[in-house]
Order: sequence, then structure tokens, then C-alpha cells
Amino acid sequence: MPDHRIHNFNAGPAALPLSVVEEVQAALPNFQNTGMGLLEISHRSKPFQGVIDSATARLRRVLDVPADYQILFLQGGASLQFYMSALNLLRAGEEADYLVTGTWAKKALQEAQKISVNAKGIWDDKANNYKNVPGDADYTVRENAAYLHYTTNNTIFGTEYRRTPAAYGKPLVADASSDIAGVPLDVAAHGLIYAGAQKNLGPSGVTVVIVSPWALSRVPAGLPAMLDYALQVKEGSMYNTPNTFGIYVLDRTMAWVEANGGREGMIARNAEKAGLLYAELDRSAFWTTHAAPGSRSWMNVTWRLPTEALEEQFVKEAKAAGMEGLKGHRSVGGIRASLYNAIEPASVRVLVDFMQDFERRAG
Amino acid sequence: MPDHRIHNFNAGPAALPLSVVEEVQAALPNFQNTGMGLLEISHRSKPFQGVIDSATARLRRVLDVPADYQILFLQGGASLQFYMSALNLLRAGEEADYLVTGTWAKKALQEAQKISVNAKGIWDDKANNYKNVPGDADYTVRENAAYLHYTTNNTIFGTEYRRTPAAYGKPLVADASSDIAGVPLDVAAHGLIYAGAQKNLGPSGVTVVIVSPWALSRVPAGLPAMLDYALQVKEGSMYNTPNTFGIYVLDRTMAWVEANGGREGMIARNAEKAGLLYAELDRSAFWTTHAAPGSRSWMNVTWRLPTEALEEQFVKEAKAAGMEGLKGHRSVGGIRASLYNAIEPASVRVLVDFMQDFERRAG
Repeated sequence: MPDHRIHNFNAGPAALPLSVVEEVQAALPNFQNTGMGLLEISHRSKPFQGVIDSATARLRRVLDVPADYQILFLQGGASLQFYMSALNLLRAGEEADYLVTGTWAKKALQEAQKISVNAKGIWDDKANNYKNVPGDADYTVRENAAYLHYTTNNTIFGTEYRRTPAAYGKPLVADASSDIAGVPLDVAAHGLIYAGAQKNLGPSGVTVVIVSPWALSRVPAGLPAMLDYALQVKEGSMYNTPNTFGIYVLDRTMAWVEANGGREGMIARNAEKAGLLYAELDRSAFWTTHAAPGSRSWMNVTWRLPTEALEEQFVKEAKAAGMEGLKGHRSVGGIRASLYNAIEPASVRVLVDFMQDFERRAG
Repeated sequence: MPDHRIHNFNAGPAALPLSVVEEVQAALPNFQNTGMGLLEISHRSKPFQGVIDSATARLRRVLDVPADYQILFLQGGASLQFYMSALNLLRAGEEADYLVTGTWAKKALQEAQKISVNAKGIWDDKANNYKNVPGDADYTVRENAAYLHYTTNNTIFGTEYRRTPAAYGKPLVADASSDIAGVPLDVAAHGLIYAGAQKNLGPSGVTVVIVSPWALSRVPAGLPAMLDYALQVKEGSMYNTPNTFGIYVLDRTMAWVEANGGREGMIARNAEKAGLLYAELDRSAFWTTHAAPGSRSWMNVTWRLPTEALEEQFVKEAKAAGMEGLKGHRSVGGIRASLYNAIEPASVRVLVDFMQDFERRAG
């Protein structure tokens, strides 16, 4: 079976390390010799408490999370956090500023506007079809903004901040779904970070939320229980039954990260992979990258070919050559290769070799 | 490994059929010969669309869901549905009536009261520590109530309705988390049904919601996207990335149900298991059931022994004899055996034999 695994460039859910997949397989019928399978143990049991404690400790180490920040494992993805973060951090009528760098950033803003009409996009690159992330001088944050929200990496458009954006003294709130644990991230510089797990952290169905003391201090009384950060912190992410399986896979994935150099190891690995692919894209005018040079993502690389017919042929031939998930999102068209942590550098080399061969044959 | 699986009487997450566990194992490294693992395929791919379509069709058949009702696969468990159902079905100031038969029913009411101060418990068995579910004559529904909410089975107290409660002409809303697909349920008699999957349907992290045309007609404009039944219906439960793994396991679990006689097969199997255990509990005054005779649950059987010391010894010796999950919830004390669909009748016979032996030795 493992022999037949192809090169998986999916944007998410995405590739996981094979060793993690094999650990999960082994745990399914009989978890830690309890005589019960991974899916069949109580979330209130000692073995599962061990899993969630381990996952928390690993994330804390991998991401260098300050001791006074809390880590939650919730459900509903970043899309629920778009609303939940504003529900917890913003009051009706208050201002909150959003950097709109693509589809997900825009949705985050729209959900916040359901809490306060004064949530506002203070920078929006729609006119350029989101080829850029802003420089610090490209925007100012309003004097009374409760926070500044941004999206660390834009899966669809293939752009990414290469440093923490300036917050002008306000708390920073980040959707880090698609590059968390794969690129530098200064957690201590943020008031809140949330991330769906299905790119770098594990499977879909788990959402990691990193909550600062500031964020906790903002939580109003009387929120719906499941949408209340303070209650979820108090209950250790187990106000109700969490996605026990997903948290286990996340723990195993973070163990793999730690065994491979931790986040620094991932950063080096991802810089190498992105470097290989962008070097090929820059080598020939046959390829046109979507992202502006200063805004390029390491996680999702997006580019066009001279014609749509060639793009279609590229995806089809790549598939025949054992590479999946390369069709670009309809908002950009063309090709997208997602290079999350689990993607091997060897897979990127296979892709680059294929690209060079394709250009020769098509050119 | 499978040889060492014990008798798992957990209240949830709970036992799954071993054949399902083995199918899941096989799908993990290479799903349907795609060369990508079950956790690594896109939710927008044809293989996954096949999974969610299959899961929907199976639930429709197993539960006899009317053609004009919609089936959703959401996240957050029943606890999020406590709020979300009221958010979609109730307006501020409107009346909604709740039958309070235990902890979860009470929490459902409390979340609804965050939408409307006129959500009200019209029957509450707290004085009897929730030994009963009400008869139809034990309550009346208010003239202007938007709906009547009830909890089909009370996991903690071990009580269950043996028929659909009278709704007095109002739409019925049910939390069916802990007995769905295991007992009779007249879906067409309901306006909304929701259920966490981790008892009879599959793993934790998936929530099934069955939405009637009436429920859809109640959804107001402008809800948070992830909490909007109408939007989730429109997007086929894929407004964002769903718990793809959990939906797959649910589909396989429902395939197992269908291969074992469908819901009628499960009802016969569960009647047999509950019959075996209640016969033993009624045989000897050594055991005292918590639930009143007319309110007994087939899914969670709760009882006391003469002393707490004996109860502790019972749980300990049962564990040594290969039976897990028998410690009662602290709200009731004593013993609880959960007999969900996947529990084999043979496991209940082992339990009953152990009980008779325990009584002989202790008596």
C-alpha cells in the first residue's frame, strides 16, 4: 500500500507523514493496550487526558507559546473562529480593523461585522486580485480599534506575510490556519491565534486556538457555552466531547515535527521546498507566478501557464505522473502546489523535473 | 490485537463494530486506491463527495427520513446544537417549551434562554433525581410556544421515552444523541433532530442534524455563517472543511447497521440486550435500578448496589474480568452500562454472569 502513495499537493485536507498514518492505524483497534480502540475510549479517561496534555505540551514547545497563554482544541474550523473571535473580543459598536488579503480574510471581516458594524477592512488588495500582502506603511490602524486582524497565509492566492505585520500598538489577531508550525510566528506578539488543523497540524475537524491573557480579559459574560473562550479554557477544551481522534492525530503529527527538528526544522525544510519551486518559476517566462515577489507563500505556490489549455494539460499529465492536487483555485486559475510540512523535498524535485520536461515538450 | 479487545460499556465515545474499525484502518494510507490516505483527500474531491453522499443516503434509509427533510453533518456536538437550534428556530421574546429530564435537557434550555427569556422548562424531574420521563398528561405546552424540545434518552440518568412525547400541535425538537438509530424514532413527527455521533453513529467530532421544511422556514437572515442551517443545507454541509474522517466512519458504521438488519435489526438487538440486563436487575433485590420502570433506557442502564464500597468493588472486579466503562456518573453514582448498537449481546451475557457471581460472593 504505502508504495502506491502519490505526491499529494492538496491544499487541505493535505498530506500527513506516513509514519503518523501508521501510528494511527495501529491505535485504532487497541489503544495503548487498553483493549479499546482509539475511537472508543472515553474523553474523560486517563489515556485520553494523556493525549490532550501531550498535544498541548507539544504545541507549546513547537510554537514557543508563552506560559500565560492557553491552548484550546475546538471544532468548526477557522470559519467558526471568524465569528467566535469577534464574539469574544469585540462589543457592538466597537471598532476592529481587518487586513483583507483574500477570500478568508474577507469572510473573517464579514463575520465580525455581525458583531459590530464598525469592524472594517482597512486595506484590501481586491483590485490586484490579491497578489500582495501589505507592507507596514500601507495601512494605519484606527485609534480606537480593539484589535488588528490578519490572515498569515492566503491558501487560495498563494501570498503570505514574511514578518509579523505592524499592529500600531493594538492587539493582533491572526488566522494562521495554513502556515502555522511551518513558518516563523511570534506567538507572544499576538492577542489571539486560531488555525484549522487540516494543513500543518493534522486532520480536519480540529481547530487550535491560542488565547492570550488579553483575549481572556475581553470575554463578556453570558456567551453561548460552546462559543465562550473563558469557559473552554476553564474546562480544558472538554466542556463537551471533543474530536478525540483529531486531537490524537495532531499530537502524533507534532511528535513528528519535534522528531524532525521542531519548527526550526520545518522552517528550513519549507524554505528549501519553496526555494526549489520558485527558482524554477523564476527561471522561465513560461511560468507566471500569481503572488508578487515580496508576498510569496511558502505553503501554497500559485502560477499560470501561457494558456488555459496548457494548464489543463499540465494538471492531467502531472496526475498521470503521480502528482495530485495541482489544479488552481477558480479565483486564480492555473496551478497551485501546496507544500505543507509533510510534503517531502523529494516530491518538489519530482514536480520541478516534471515542469522542466513539460516546458520542453510544450515550448 | 483484536483478540484483546475487552467488553466496552463506555457512555461515549463508545464501542464501534470491529469490522468498521478494520475498514477505517485499511483506508488510512491509501483511500479507494487514490494513492492518498483517508485523512489526506480533499473534501472537494469526487471520492469524498461519494462518502458524504453515501452517509446521507444511508442515514435517510436507516432512519426513514422524509424526502423533504435535509441531513447535515456539522461539528461541535449536541452542546453547540443547544444554542444553534434556538438561534435558528426562536426569536428574542418568543416562547419555547422544554421537558427537563436531566443534565443535557437542562443545558439545552439554558442555551435557548440566551436567545429568548421566554424559553421555559415546563416539566422538570429534579426532585426525583431524574428517574422519570413525563407521560403525555404530565405537562401541557404553552399556546404560543414555537416548539417543544425534549431529550430522547438521558445518558447520565438512564431514562428514555418509549414513544414520541405529545407535542400538542407544536413542532417537536429532539436531542437524539444517545439513542438515534438504536430505538424507534418517528423522524416525520419532528421539526428538528440533532445528535452527536459518538454513541450509535460513529466517532466524536461529527454532529448529525435533520432539518424539516418547517425548521428551514424559521431561519432568520444574517446568522453567523457556521451557525446557519439554511446556509449549511445550501452548501451540503461543506460551507467549510467538514470532519471528513468522522463522516467516513459514520458512513461505514451505517453500512454495518444496514448489513445487520437496519434500524429494525438494531431495535431487536437492543431490546434483547436491555431485556437481559433488566431481567437480572429485577431478579434480585441486591440491585436497585435508578430509572422508574416506565422510563428505563435501552441504551444506558443505571443501578445501585447495597453500599458504595460494593459498587467500587464491582467496578474493580468487572475491570479485572475484562469489562470497562461501568462506573456510574457522579450524578447518580453506582453502575452504568451503556449498550449502544455495537455492543454484542454476548457482552451483556458476560456482564450478567459476572453480576450473578458477584452477588453470590458478596451476598
